[in-house]
Amino acid sequence: MTTVRDLTTKPHEALAAFLSDDMMAVNALIAERMASKHAPRIPEVTRHLVEAGGKRLRPMLTLAAARLCGYEGPYHVHLAATVEFIHTATLLHDDVVDESGQRRGRPTANLLWDNKSSVLVGDYLFSRSFQLMVETGSLRVLDILANASAKIAEGEVLQLTAAQDLATDESVYLQVVRGKTAALFSAATEVGGVIAGADEADVEALFDYGDKLGIAFQIVDDLLDYEGDTKATGKNIGDDFRERKLTLPLIKAIAKADDIERAFWVRTIEKGKQEDGDLDEALRLLTKHNALSETREDALAYVAQAKAAMASLPEHPIRDMLTGLADYVVARIN
Amino acid sequence: MTTVRDLTTKPHEALAAFLSDDMMAVNALIAERMASKHAPRIPEVTRHLVEAGGKRLRPMLTLAAARLCGYEGPYHVHLAATVEFIHTATLLHDDVVDESGQRRGRPTANLLWDNKSSVLVGDYLFSRSFQLMVETGSLRVLDILANASAKIAEGEVLQLTAAQDLATDESVYLQVVRGKTAALFSAATEVGGVIAGADEADVEALFDYGDKLGIAFQIVDDLLDYEGDTKATGKNIGDDFRERKLTLPLIKAIAKADDIERAFWVRTIEKGKQEDGDLDEALRLLTKHNALSETREDALAYVAQAKAAMASLPEHPIRDMLTGLADYVVARIN
Repeated sequence: MTTVRDLTTKPHEALAAFLSDDMMAVNALIAERMASKHAPRIPEVTRHLVEAGGKRLRPMLTLAAARLCGYEGPYHVHLAATVEFIHTATLLHDDVVDESGQRRGRPTANLLWDNKSSVLVGDYLFSRSFQLMVETGSLRVLDILANASAKIAEGEVLQLTAAQDLATDESVYLQVVRGKTAALFSAATEVGGVIAGADEADVEALFDYGDKLGIAFQIVDDLLDYEGDTKATGKNIGDDFRERKLTLPLIKAIAKADDIERAFWVRTIEKGKQEDGDLDEALRLLTKHNALSETREDALAYVAQAKAAMASLPEHPIRDMLTGLADYVVARIN
Repeated sequence: MTTVRDLTTKPHEALAAFLSDDMMAVNALIAERMASKHAPRIPEVTRHLVEAGGKRLRPMLTLAAARLCGYEGPYHVHLAATVEFIHTATLLHDDVVDESGQRRGRPTANLLWDNKSSVLVGDYLFSRSFQLMVETGSLRVLDILANASAKIAEGEVLQLTAAQDLATDESVYLQVVRGKTAALFSAATEVGGVIAGADEADVEALFDYGDKLGIAFQIVDDLLDYEGDTKATGKNIGDDFRERKLTLPLIKAIAKADDIERAFWVRTIEKGKQEDGDLDEALRLLTKHNALSETREDALAYVAQAKAAMASLPEHPIRDMLTGLADYVVARIN
């Protein structure tokens, strides 16, 4: 599915170059709005995350969707910053939650500061994002982002109970992923279309693209946890296993487990009693049941759906870049 | 200032009785919106807080303000539920933050569940509050609540750094209090007026009433920490001292401290090296410098300002109840 071109040109970089003026405006707005006259702790904490330099994928999706639909106004920049603030706030709250040791190859905020700062600075960024979207004056945009926020939080809470419950099946996994990842991707693209006044069919296609891209993105992330290159991902192989997190590869392997294998999963995931060699055994079972290759196929299927949604939109250089971006998301696992 | 009548009739109960139909609608809406089909953990956590039965003071302020301004529509109920959700979310996030052992005489949510649930369920309630306010269709209401949210979060973060810093003076204290407490009180009353279409002078008076009432409320709370009745408040005397939290009584005593006293505050608050007998010494210093009586006077002064704001509004039974409520807030310390 993925061509050599996609692997070499990095579509997110092409998109970033195409949208560079807009991205600069977004970065300036983020810097301006994350400041706090009264509480210097706030930029201290957020700078850490903002400078860590994620790919700014989500705000780029908003800019791209708005421009693709011919938007000429100023508010796609506000919405892109909104989306990045929501994302950053979620990361800060995730840090508290996961007690994870690093993110993007750096220590997480709550090791450098503390849980208190992560929670409250996250809240501050949520509030700032809320102010930014109010400034657009679009009730429809506010409605979309309010619903996305609720879906994100619900997905995160669902994950708390589902992650270590062997009864978690693929439909529950999908629900969690739609919440914790795809809801913000789809809101990012949808509000870009809405602010541009795109017609309903195009708005729906943009939503679908974001939704499917987000699901594929998370599935790839979960797959890389078992077969990624530690240097490239900044994560260790098997982190999810050690943290007893049921993701798609495990769910697929558990669905095909015999009694002995099931006892292994009960011990290591449900009861959390892990010993040396357990990760190797988990990897052996994933391979035995084709769980990794089937997970890869699922990711590819969602990417195909994302590209199909894009194909229904009018011709535009950005449309092709977004199509390329979808391929790129799964290129890491091919 | 406070009459016997105020002490016996409990104005918040009179107000609750007067607004009982509205309050029932608010309670029903809260129950409906805190539910989650997908994540049963959510109502588990929130039920704990909602049933703990705070006085529902903040939502009552919104209902009262709207009715006082002649509102006949349905959205004051949405806004009252919004305000209660924001308040509950803040409590949940505070629980993570303060590692406090009890709230309203019950164990806090994060002892019954865990930090993860407190953070994420708090986020969920924030999102639900956001959905409720979008439903009102009023961009001005959204603007007020977005700004209040940012102020709340900023106040909480400021408190993190200011609480143990002996340089914290009364103006910084006031800033923290305006953020963590008064911002939601003043937004609660202001949006009630705005949704009712009240004229600007009345909206401003409602804001002022909420602002001053909120400040008085927090000062009283901080005072009761040093002289309250443990049974009535559900808190232990000196919790703030033990948690090394600089509140108004301490700030006043520290401002008048001689060198020996200052060394005592540096050791107990800044360095947190507390020994048996330190609380008694702190109480002795508070009394020596009239810090408790001066704090009480400050609270009374803010109550007087709240009542003055109320006096500018048109005559109405609710106006008198809100005036009585202001007296009641400080009646606990008289």
